Amino acid sequence: MSYHSSERPRATDLGLKIGLLPHGAHNAITDVPRVSVGHVTLIDGEGILEMGRGPVRTGVTVILPHGRNIFQEKVTAAVYVLNGFGKSVGFPQVAELGRIESPIALTSTLSTWRVADALIDFLSEENPGVYSFNPIVGECNDAYLNDIVGRHVTAKHVFRAIKGATSPNIDEGVVGAGTGMTGFGWKGGIGTSSRLCELPAGVFTVGVMTLTNTGDARELRMDGVQIGRRLLPSDMMEDRGSIMMVVATDAPLSSRQLGRIARRAGMGLARAGGIAGHGSGDFIIAFSNATEQAHIEEEELTTLFRGVVEATEEAIINSVLRAETVVGRDGNTRHGIPIDRVSDILREHGVV
Amino acid sequence: MSYHSSERPRATDLGLKIGLLPHGAHNAITDVPRVSVGHVTLIDGEGILEMGRGPVRTGVTVILPHGRNIFQEKVTAAVYVLNGFGKSVGFPQVAELGRIESPIALTSTLSTWRVADALIDFLSEENPGVYSFNPIVGECNDAYLNDIVGRHVTAKHVFRAIKGATSPNIDEGVVGAGTGMTGFGWKGGIGTSSRLCELPAGVFTVGVMTLTNTGDARELRMDGVQIGRRLLPSDMMEDRGSIMMVVATDAPLSSRQLGRIARRAGMGLARAGGIAGHGSGDFIIAFSNATEQAHIEEEELTTLFRGVVEATEEAIINSVLRAETVVGRDGNTRHGIPIDRVSDILREHGVV
Amino acid sequence: MSYHSSERPRATDLGLKIGLLPHGAHNAITDVPRVSVGHVTLIDGEGILEMGRGPVRTGVTVILPHGRNIFQEKVTAAVYVLNGFGKSVGFPQVAELGRIESPIALTSTLSTWRVADALIDFLSEENPGVYSFNPIVGECNDAYLNDIVGRHVTAKHVFRAIKGATSPNIDEGVVGAGTGMTGFGWKGGIGTSSRLCELPAGVFTVGVMTLTNTGDARELRMDGVQIGRRLLPSDMMEDRGSIMMVVATDAPLSSRQLGRIARRAGMGLARAGGIAGHGSGDFIIAFSNATEQAHIEEEELTTLFRGVVEATEEAIINSVLRAETVVGRDGNTRHGIPIDRVSDILREHGVV
Amino acid sequence: MSYHSSERPRATDLGLKIGLLPHGAHNAITDVPRVSVGHVTLIDGEGILEMGRGPVRTGVTVILPHGRNIFQEKVTAAVYVLNGFGKSVGFPQVAELGRIESPIALTSTLSTWRVADALIDFLSEENPGVYSFNPIVGECNDAYLNDIVGRHVTAKHVFRAIKGATSPNIDEGVVGAGTGMTGFGWKGGIGTSSRLCELPAGVFTVGVMTLTNTGDARELRMDGVQIGRRLLPSDMMEDRGSIMMVVATDAPLSSRQLGRIARRAGMGLARAGGIAGHGSGDFIIAFSNATEQAHIEEEELTTLFRGVVEATEEAIINSVLRAETVVGRDGNTRHGIPIDRVSDILREHGVV
Repeated sequence: MSYHSSERPRATDLGLKIGLLPHGAHNAITDVPRVSVGHVTLIDGEGILEMGRGPVRTGVTVILPHGRNIFQEKVTAAVYVLNGFGKSVGFPQVAELGRIESPIALTSTLSTWRVADALIDFLSEENPGVYSFNPIVGECNDAYLNDIVGRHVTAKHVFRAIKGATSPNIDEGVVGAGTGMTGFGWKGGIGTSSRLCELPAGVFTVGVMTLTNTGDARELRMDGVQIGRRLLPSDMMEDRGSIMMVVATDAPLSSRQLGRIARRAGMGLARAGGIAGHGSGDFIIAFSNATEQAHIEEEELTTLFRGVVEATEEAIINSVLRAETVVGRDGNTRHGIPIDRVSDILREHGVV
Repeated sequence: MSYHSSERPRATDLGLKIGLLPHGAHNAITDVPRVSVGHVTLIDGEGILEMGRGPVRTGVTVILPHGRNIFQEKVTAAVYVLNGFGKSVGFPQVAELGRIESPIALTSTLSTWRVADALIDFLSEENPGVYSFNPIVGECNDAYLNDIVGRHVTAKHVFRAIKGATSPNIDEGVVGAGTGMTGFGWKGGIGTSSRLCELPAGVFTVGVMTLTNTGDARELRMDGVQIGRRLLPSDMMEDRGSIMMVVATDAPLSSRQLGRIARRAGMGLARAGGIAGHGSGDFIIAFSNATEQAHIEEEELTTLFRGVVEATEEAIINSVLRAETVVGRDGNTRHGIPIDRVSDILREHGVV
Repeated sequence: MSYHSSERPRATDLGLKIGLLPHGAHNAITDVPRVSVGHVTLIDGEGILEMGRGPVRTGVTVILPHGRNIFQEKVTAAVYVLNGFGKSVGFPQVAELGRIESPIALTSTLSTWRVADALIDFLSEENPGVYSFNPIVGECNDAYLNDIVGRHVTAKHVFRAIKGATSPNIDEGVVGAGTGMTGFGWKGGIGTSSRLCELPAGVFTVGVMTLTNTGDARELRMDGVQIGRRLLPSDMMEDRGSIMMVVATDAPLSSRQLGRIARRAGMGLARAGGIAGHGSGDFIIAFSNATEQAHIEEEELTTLFRGVVEATEEAIINSVLRAETVVGRDGNTRHGIPIDRVSDILREHGVV
Repeated sequence: MSYHSSERPRATDLGLKIGLLPHGAHNAITDVPRVSVGHVTLIDGEGILEMGRGPVRTGVTVILPHGRNIFQEKVTAAVYVLNGFGKSVGFPQVAELGRIESPIALTSTLSTWRVADALIDFLSEENPGVYSFNPIVGECNDAYLNDIVGRHVTAKHVFRAIKGATSPNIDEGVVGAGTGMTGFGWKGGIGTSSRLCELPAGVFTVGVMTLTNTGDARELRMDGVQIGRRLLPSDMMEDRGSIMMVVATDAPLSSRQLGRIARRAGMGLARAGGIAGHGSGDFIIAFSNATEQAHIEEEELTTLFRGVVEATEEAIINSVLRAETVVGRDGNTRHGIPIDRVSDILREHGVV
């Protein structure tokens, strides 16, 4: 069973043109050279929640900054916590040392530490004789649809996601860590987008992937059009949930500069309608996999900032547009946003 | 000579209804009980820049958290630096002690320290025998229109702004610190707005004042409508400038909670089209003047977060709508955004 | 087999009187009313390292802020990262919300996430129907003595440490998480101390527990006497390792005030000879289990700061004094510091 | 009248050998190549305080990272706030951009902003056509001896300090910004020290200057010997005051690495007896004036950390040893610590 329907459109398929900058070849985080993405989607059972048995609506997503041994070839990185009501693993060391030495995994809140432990399995195997690793895991809470306490993501799923990572990869919606997530009251999950940034030193790509599990249906907006004023799900939810935003670039930035990059992702969230509500753990991870030591002047960063804001906004919109309806534990349901209605509203407001 | 034209409309006058929450009585930061605002506007001379002589297009704005001795009756506070390319004074002590003990002043970048020193004059006079004060000053750069190196704001102007502070006060645009500022390529300056937030403990007000000197004309949006796609100033500018955002509330929040409040203001900036470009020093000051020690649960903060995002977005829009064209030094000119054109665009996009 | 020798003296047994303030009844973190501590020590096998088999020289330590359901009765808290080369779990949420809702566990670096996952087991069992928990785990690296990749600490050990927590508890040295640790080139591990702080609002206790795995033998000092100038282990080590410092108090502090408390712990480390070397992940967790909402004025904090500095210095010294020699994997050995020699040096320098 | 007595000894003159690393040629911050220091000392009048008239016991100290136009040739930098009860100017921009573009000035608390404004005069003159500068000023409170509200440091003093900056410069004690300061209950002020750090990439210098106005007389220690247990000033003071610590190096560090450096300075303060009391604004500024783009591996930083801790401890000790008794406003007196007594105590404790 797969909920991931390739027929559902992305923002660009609806005619949206978000922001000023052009997107990359596939409008995905994997447009950043050498970045690959793997998803393992776990869907099993239905009906009443039986802790440890299911129903299972969860998964794991990994982002590999490059295809080589990441512990040996660390990437420059930064993190930013917009709203720290969340369990993300590995942030203090990135803040201190400015680098990531692990695949980046996204998953269900209560599976966070098992996934981190699985990354230790993976890193230990690849690096015998090394006794210290800093795994990076982000999470959102899929308890509404999933048997979250059951923690159904295991080490083998993490390995499979890593080994199966591909580029290009534009899987979105009900896939990997996104399987059980909710976006602005609709079914949410994984979304991605990218921007090409022309700098004096060359054209660089900024790619964003979001795990969207945040937002109030009344506030959803697409390219500024306030969808939530016209279209609401039948079953309104309380505002819970979170969002993970991963920003990748091949621009040769320092960790301090990546910190500046990371702080802009929340501005893309705001444009899509987010307000970082109390219960929303909103975490940003930004990395550069550039290998040359070219130097980007501070003054040139504005274009990259714009790329982050635009690609984050679009990734979030994609995560909602592309997600099919999912029925989870206890019959709890998140509906895929009705595409026709969205299209009509966008047209009536003159943006497509 | 006064550029401040009461005929220019605010967002609500154009029919805009930004966000979900109702605004306060005057839709201004002074809707927060006991908060008052004073502006001193300095406009003098024209023609070629002669350093130390003019032309002068600058001023100072003060926000008083309450009408009493602020050093004796400190208010709980927090600060947040979204983009630290700026000179704001007094932030480290607020971060450490969680309180403000000075009027909050906004002014021209290079006048920052003279204004801070003037606050020492004021605080020393009011509190003989006290030898330590932490003045709070925010700034934006008005060099495009003003003889900025001349530093024309003096202690007497600061005193006059304090003594003349009033409530309600809905002066906006080319007034006080906003006199020489630019917003999204148009004339910018001071803007304000407020929201009423219904919490279990009562209805509280969130008020925002922005000193808007940031933004790219192509990205300006109002209630989501992308004005910048249809309307650009004739003389495009490079992206420079900054924005100060001051958030006031009467909700009895801790300084940690106010820190959470402060981090949301940038989300309102994003909705108005901001991206916090490299050169934009984007600083947020948030305070609560509540006197009772009631306790707001974390879970209740979401409504206040929404209030901050909405009021910040609207304050920025007001700062642009209300600002008349100003001709400054060397004939440099910032045009007031043409209201008719804005109205038409909003109507065509179906938001008014 | 137990390495924990009650005959080895603490600092006070040697006649040391560190600092200005008196210590609590047992000079331990458990002097803070309602705080209890549990250790599970894992020692198994000897000889050549066989990954997954042993030798095992590790353990887990838990600190319970009070004896009740910690998720239901959260405690006010703060964290501080002096040197972020470490994997501690749960810090961002504490920074955001200012509270701890989990037992605090300390363990071996690579067991961090399994211990965190075990805390989920524990918290889930105690709180059915809750789907979000923020486990707190600190760690140091015991790879020199222990089969660290084997991750021998399991959920049952975590449960046993929680269920077996006691007060008073002055177990120190080779116990719990301290089993495989190194302190200033000597055998290190767990140490604890406390101070009584007389404030206008009453006498409050500050208790500190350190998991000491840091320091250069040449820099070790006790009450200022530079032991390392006179006494070095035969096998000098490279400077690796870390230190976890947990500060407890019953003073009714806000999370912001606890943040100030946390930043002082590193000053106690400095007095014991630490420099927070690159490889030393130095993390501080501070909490208050006060239940009344009394208010401590900022001005009164200085005495508490003094208490933290003094108790941290003494806890570290205790962690070294009390630790017996341990032979670990591959015959690797950390020697207990020779007490007679230490006594002589202290006497010769006139501090005892 | 000059209180600065070259006859008073430094720590090394007493035979103290603090730490493991050798000091530079003059054991001063000016051992870092290209760094120079200028002091202007203001001593005028005696007797009863008459605000605006005197007595004057204050001054200004400037540290120039190199002898060239600092705005044109910025230096890499970081800041750290150990205790934010202070008014330091310019920190947010250094945190954001990782560089300093101004002379670093130290002065009396209430003169902070006039000194910052004077730096604008200086920078504007040197850089016509530039309209944005980020002046850096640190401060301590000399109100006990000085007419602090009078703000007697003027722009001409700042210019004179800059123009008169020299290298080597080992002026210490009652000089420049140190004129009215108190250290551990004794007369304090300016102190300096340096360390040579041998790294794979070469030998680099770490130099520290402190403006010492902090500490409790009972806690003063020198090379671990607790002077305060044996020797107290006749007039004990309340614990007020602050300390500014400026760290310079020629090691080619990134701003993130300098941030790590900055966080260690407080450890040197702790060794000298500091606890960063509530009222002590403890701020650290660290910069590198390296011009080549060599790369220092993180692993090599430990030696530099050691250098910072040791040089900070020694600079603080020097600031107390070298300061003569000063009688200030209203006859308030701070006594120079009696050197003979200190010598005796050090000898009796076997460290010299």
